[in-house]
Amino acid sequence: MATAGKVIRCKAAVAWEPNKPLVMEEIEVAPPQANEVRIKIVATGVCHTDLYHLFEGMHKDGFPVVLGHEGAGIVESVGTGVTEFQPGDKVIPLFISQCRECRFCKSPKTNQAADRYDVMALEETRLTCKGKKLLQFLGTSTFSEYTVLNQIAVAKIDPAAPLDKVCLLGCGVCTGFGAAVNTAKVEAGSTCAVFGLGAVGLAAVMGCKAAGAQRIIAVDINPEKFEKAKVFGATEFVNPKDHSRPISQVLAEMTDGGVDFSLECVGNVGVMRSALESCVKGWGVSVLVGWTDLQDFAARPIQLIAGRTWKGTLFGGFKGKDGVPEMVKAYLDKKVKLDEFITHNMTLDQVNDAVKLMKNGQCMLLFLG
Amino acid sequence: MATAGKVIRCKAAVAWEPNKPLVMEEIEVAPPQANEVRIKIVATGVCHTDLYHLFEGMHKDGFPVVLGHEGAGIVESVGTGVTEFQPGDKVIPLFISQCRECRFCKSPKTNQAADRYDVMALEETRLTCKGKKLLQFLGTSTFSEYTVLNQIAVAKIDPAAPLDKVCLLGCGVCTGFGAAVNTAKVEAGSTCAVFGLGAVGLAAVMGCKAAGAQRIIAVDINPEKFEKAKVFGATEFVNPKDHSRPISQVLAEMTDGGVDFSLECVGNVGVMRSALESCVKGWGVSVLVGWTDLQDFAARPIQLIAGRTWKGTLFGGFKGKDGVPEMVKAYLDKKVKLDEFITHNMTLDQVNDAVKLMKNGQCMLLFLG
Repeated sequence: MATAGKVIRCKAAVAWEPNKPLVMEEIEVAPPQANEVRIKIVATGVCHTDLYHLFEGMHKDGFPVVLGHEGAGIVESVGTGVTEFQPGDKVIPLFISQCRECRFCKSPKTNQAADRYDVMALEETRLTCKGKKLLQFLGTSTFSEYTVLNQIAVAKIDPAAPLDKVCLLGCGVCTGFGAAVNTAKVEAGSTCAVFGLGAVGLAAVMGCKAAGAQRIIAVDINPEKFEKAKVFGATEFVNPKDHSRPISQVLAEMTDGGVDFSLECVGNVGVMRSALESCVKGWGVSVLVGWTDLQDFAARPIQLIAGRTWKGTLFGGFKGKDGVPEMVKAYLDKKVKLDEFITHNMTLDQVNDAVKLMKNGQCMLLFLG
Repeated sequence: MATAGKVIRCKAAVAWEPNKPLVMEEIEVAPPQANEVRIKIVATGVCHTDLYHLFEGMHKDGFPVVLGHEGAGIVESVGTGVTEFQPGDKVIPLFISQCRECRFCKSPKTNQAADRYDVMALEETRLTCKGKKLLQFLGTSTFSEYTVLNQIAVAKIDPAAPLDKVCLLGCGVCTGFGAAVNTAKVEAGSTCAVFGLGAVGLAAVMGCKAAGAQRIIAVDINPEKFEKAKVFGATEFVNPKDHSRPISQVLAEMTDGGVDFSLECVGNVGVMRSALESCVKGWGVSVLVGWTDLQDFAARPIQLIAGRTWKGTLFGGFKGKDGVPEMVKAYLDKKVKLDEFITHNMTLDQVNDAVKLMKNGQCMLLFLG
């Protein structure tokens, strides 16, 4: 705990403004205050939501910011009042906190704490650069060698966990897997369709398989993704570009009326509609998993009146402090795959190359901090 | 069974074309064929869906037609193969059949049979007038002194049931009550909002109360409906016209973040959106109950991603042959109210006056056949 109480100077990728390359800077990371934990980030993935913030959302109050929210690291020091964590603990930062005290945390129905998860308040950041406060994206900021989080937003994990793999449980893999298992509640013997085969979609395929689905139809306009989807459990593949009919009609014909569960893992309102319409009447459940919030999603009322259900998921419905360590254990027990998601290993200095690869549809990247 | 096998000539209100008054005609009602039941309609309500077909849907292939689908009557004769019904049985026609054999009927998750419920095939009608086939609206046609249905679309009810009351269980009251109890699955102690206080909305209020809701907030732009809503269990009343803020914001302030369950009983896509947005994040459930299908309903993805669920209901999720007799029994046991819904008693000859009253927002009308 030699550094406790001292400012740490380290490297971070700073997004000074929207739609511009990130800039590697030396930043200052303040000591953890009461109830806070300072973490040395060891590995981080790049998630589409990081790119969304930079290139699509471009919220005027959202910059300058340190992006990255899918990381894993080691506790460097803790603030007063922290008893759950000690320096040296392996941890995963959580972009949805779990306080265990609010009515949301106490309810088994949701993983959404009363505390905000998607608003960044300048006065709360512990990161500064050149005299300016840097926002902490989703409260996390894993594109930095060090970051600080409130203890309610940190999950302690098995010391045996390889951080360069389990960092993926900080967002994408939990999101997709949990969307199938926790939110859709996929049933054994059912027929599922997963739209979009990025990391979240592949994790959703894995979740459908874990839940015992009999048929898992993987849908993507890039047929190169099908081989990978097979690794995670997909049984059939449909490329909408191969058909002149709407994809919902193609799936209805393949499944005698539609799938039992569909998961939208793209973040596109048109695909959200297709995913709902691909469900069977009576009991079909469609889940919004991909993130977008710039446009309305829509459908005809008969789609729901005929008995379909439309849901959404954030972080796959996992309560972070409970769920992430369990998923880490499942990985160590070889019950969920992580290694197969990783397509590139890069360094934090290469962050802009990584962003480019991600924009070009590479499914998952990994930084070593 | 003096008339068995013979055509019956009787009165019916015929909708020859969209957006025109109904015409009282003498029609011919064919004898029941195999598996069919001919019913003397004793009483029928007028439902907004009848008006929707006439004035809003105006589907070109939907005329000429005999409207009415919320009726009760007595079996007059049966076709070959019918063993469940005998002349003299009290029955309620079902616009959603229950065959007990298809995968939908066998599933506890839905009341939607494999057979179509909203398409009328000319070749299947048993009603003719002046040499022309008359469509049977929703397969029922209760604005006629007699009608014919397949036995899978008829519910036998308690002989003690007063037909001029329980006819309301043929659509509106089951739809609203079941939307709360079966589809939303309203929980004891919860907070609910019901949008629109026509018959369906009032029945939804009654369903919320039966499910043990602690607060039932009735929302309507006509404050005259609030007294009636109180009779069925509403605890609070909000008129959106009294507020300059969106109604979802008003309800969020009243309920510390939103209601647990909301029921849209208007059939308006704007209200559908408000009803969803009025739900609390994390676990709020909103149900489309009112019928419309001319426009898309829509919302921002964050509404679902934040943990809300959007559902819909048809006939309140009741499987007709099972559920309607149970609701009749609940009425006879004074567990559900029906008398309080009835605002007017009229004769079939007065059908156009009834339609006018309905269009002007009277909540429920009743014909005696």
